Amino acid sequence: MRKPRLMTPGPAPVPEEVLLELARPVIHHRSAEAKAVITEVAAGLKEVLQTQNDVMILTASGTGAMEAAAVNTVPPGSKALVLNAGHFAARWADICKAFGINAVSLDTEWGQPVDPTQVANALKQHPDTVCVMGTLSETSTGTGHPVEAIGKVVAATDAVFAVDGISGVGAMECRTDAWGIDILCVGSQKALMLPPGLAFVSVSPKAWAKIDAFESHSFYFNLKSARKKMKEFDTPFTPAHTLILALRASLKRIKEEGIENVWNRHKRMSDACQAGVQALGLELFSARPAEGLTAFRVPQGFKDSDIRNRLVERFGITTVGGQGKLKGQIVRVGHMGYTDEIDVVAGLAALEMVLSDLGFDIEPGCAVTAAQQVLIGQKTVASR
Amino acid sequence: MRKPRLMTPGPAPVPEEVLLELARPVIHHRSAEAKAVITEVAAGLKEVLQTQNDVMILTASGTGAMEAAAVNTVPPGSKALVLNAGHFAARWADICKAFGINAVSLDTEWGQPVDPTQVANALKQHPDTVCVMGTLSETSTGTGHPVEAIGKVVAATDAVFAVDGISGVGAMECRTDAWGIDILCVGSQKALMLPPGLAFVSVSPKAWAKIDAFESHSFYFNLKSARKKMKEFDTPFTPAHTLILALRASLKRIKEEGIENVWNRHKRMSDACQAGVQALGLELFSARPAEGLTAFRVPQGFKDSDIRNRLVERFGITTVGGQGKLKGQIVRVGHMGYTDEIDVVAGLAALEMVLSDLGFDIEPGCAVTAAQQVLIGQKTVASR
Repeated sequence: MRKPRLMTPGPAPVPEEVLLELARPVIHHRSAEAKAVITEVAAGLKEVLQTQNDVMILTASGTGAMEAAAVNTVPPGSKALVLNAGHFAARWADICKAFGINAVSLDTEWGQPVDPTQVANALKQHPDTVCVMGTLSETSTGTGHPVEAIGKVVAATDAVFAVDGISGVGAMECRTDAWGIDILCVGSQKALMLPPGLAFVSVSPKAWAKIDAFESHSFYFNLKSARKKMKEFDTPFTPAHTLILALRASLKRIKEEGIENVWNRHKRMSDACQAGVQALGLELFSARPAEGLTAFRVPQGFKDSDIRNRLVERFGITTVGGQGKLKGQIVRVGHMGYTDEIDVVAGLAALEMVLSDLGFDIEPGCAVTAAQQVLIGQKTVASR
Repeated sequence: MRKPRLMTPGPAPVPEEVLLELARPVIHHRSAEAKAVITEVAAGLKEVLQTQNDVMILTASGTGAMEAAAVNTVPPGSKALVLNAGHFAARWADICKAFGINAVSLDTEWGQPVDPTQVANALKQHPDTVCVMGTLSETSTGTGHPVEAIGKVVAATDAVFAVDGISGVGAMECRTDAWGIDILCVGSQKALMLPPGLAFVSVSPKAWAKIDAFESHSFYFNLKSARKKMKEFDTPFTPAHTLILALRASLKRIKEEGIENVWNRHKRMSDACQAGVQALGLELFSARPAEGLTAFRVPQGFKDSDIRNRLVERFGITTVGGQGKLKGQIVRVGHMGYTDEIDVVAGLAALEMVLSDLGFDIEPGCAVTAAQQVLIGQKTVASR
């Protein structure tokens, strides 16, 4: 028997009652019922994103939300500052390139957090920057960036701050309005506990001013059209509205738990996972771990694929390896969304056994014990 | 008791076993299992589209596929000929405008089919046309356009032929390769019997030559990236892959019935619906009806909303009214995808009763009888 356990940093597990929503007969997307659902999820999204800004629903992967943020805000030839610290941050630069946006790249070593002082310096050097493009949780390295501090820096300038919160929102504290995030991009398949297919974008008045100042080359991802329709609780084009129905169910769950409790749960899972991994003598990859996933270096003499394949074969646990230049060097374990503390403990127990099978010298129970010590409050993890 | 019956021209009803696929636990989209599913659906889509061309899977509404077709094929400032005969054909022109494509509009009265001779003349007048943008089934008017004949005209020129097949493919005969359709755009929520959220684009070698000749301003909808990934049975960005799993189930159904039988079933449903509507003394809106929906004019002295609301209230039947300049003037009844002949007969019976309730002078059973006469072969409908 193999029981599947999804421990990837997106897609993340989806609660059973949310999955069942998807199996309901399809309704018409312009009906009163559909509008009522959008009205309800619009309010729920604002709560999760901690914002009073408009939140638009796009039928797309999270990348679609990033494209929408970039092309609607920065005219071709104008300047964007990309906080380039990983595979997904680099996507901002790729999007800029495709649309003729002049992207200045502020490079940070992968696994290190972006330094707000460097952002301030870069903005002094490039005062004509229209948009700073950053990341809340860099999924490729498992790093959480200091978005609050960066937001303060950007807020003091004319630039707007666009944040890829795809694997971060719901998995770690993120206060859109309080932190000065002008545009926040979110995906459905991470901590929002849905399958992939929807993306969300919140837009501040400061960002709308930039967006309204020019006609962007965009149609499907035109945020002005999306804003107009969202005011009527509608979308410009047929949305993936069975996913919107499912979103209502997952937002209901988040509301019941409370968004701060959701963040705290992810913080505990992250702390426990880190403690467990380190108790095994493994090295964390990130200097400032994100809270929805844990990335550790593949121990010398081992292959990441051996560890990951054995986790799948023996325990049905899916994890992911490194991307781009980190291929083969790290293993990334997701603990976001519909995941609880015991899932993390079980995952660590599996990791212990798999490493033991592969000949790695481990003491059975050491990772589990370390995680439990964190979870019962006997041990704390250095705060960030 | 109100039993919901979706008779809209998209979204269309989804078979129960396809809905249940959506309720399965989420898998990882880069797993061997996910690749195997894409391999299978890629073959199935080619069969449904009757093509040997590449077929790409996009996570978007059908409009996303139209945008992909336009921006990847026609450089800004170059010319496109839009066969403008309805609300959705006009979307081609809107997309061109957004991306700086010079759209020449060949206008046809709404409800009339595009005339292939006029297309030939327009192409003579505009020999620098890069792409002709047409429609298989114009959902706003219920008109099926003579795509085969237009395809012959375009094939004799340097232009490529892009067709919006969103509400047409699977609901009426469409032979991509034999008819010279270079780019075919398809949506998931119509005759392919899925919820909305996926779109498909097939691209011919003639179209790839245009696409490869320049760097388009596109990222999320970049067809070159999509082609590259599709060769590995993968997608550039996280796809809505629970919908892809469901697609496998709906394609299995289509394969079992046989695509020609699927077309024939839709032809019979369309003929029966037309016969029934006409037996009630109602006037068909289109001079060349599409086969996935029937549009009829609202009879003098009646309001479309009264008819449609009563259909919902009394029988749970959802239909749609007119769009744009046809608002209030027509009612559109969908009969596509997971819909059979008896659904159409039942819909006509409901329409009879609703019209009677509203004081319209009808003879009970007349629409049903006319439809049955068509379905048992006693009566034929003038072929197009």
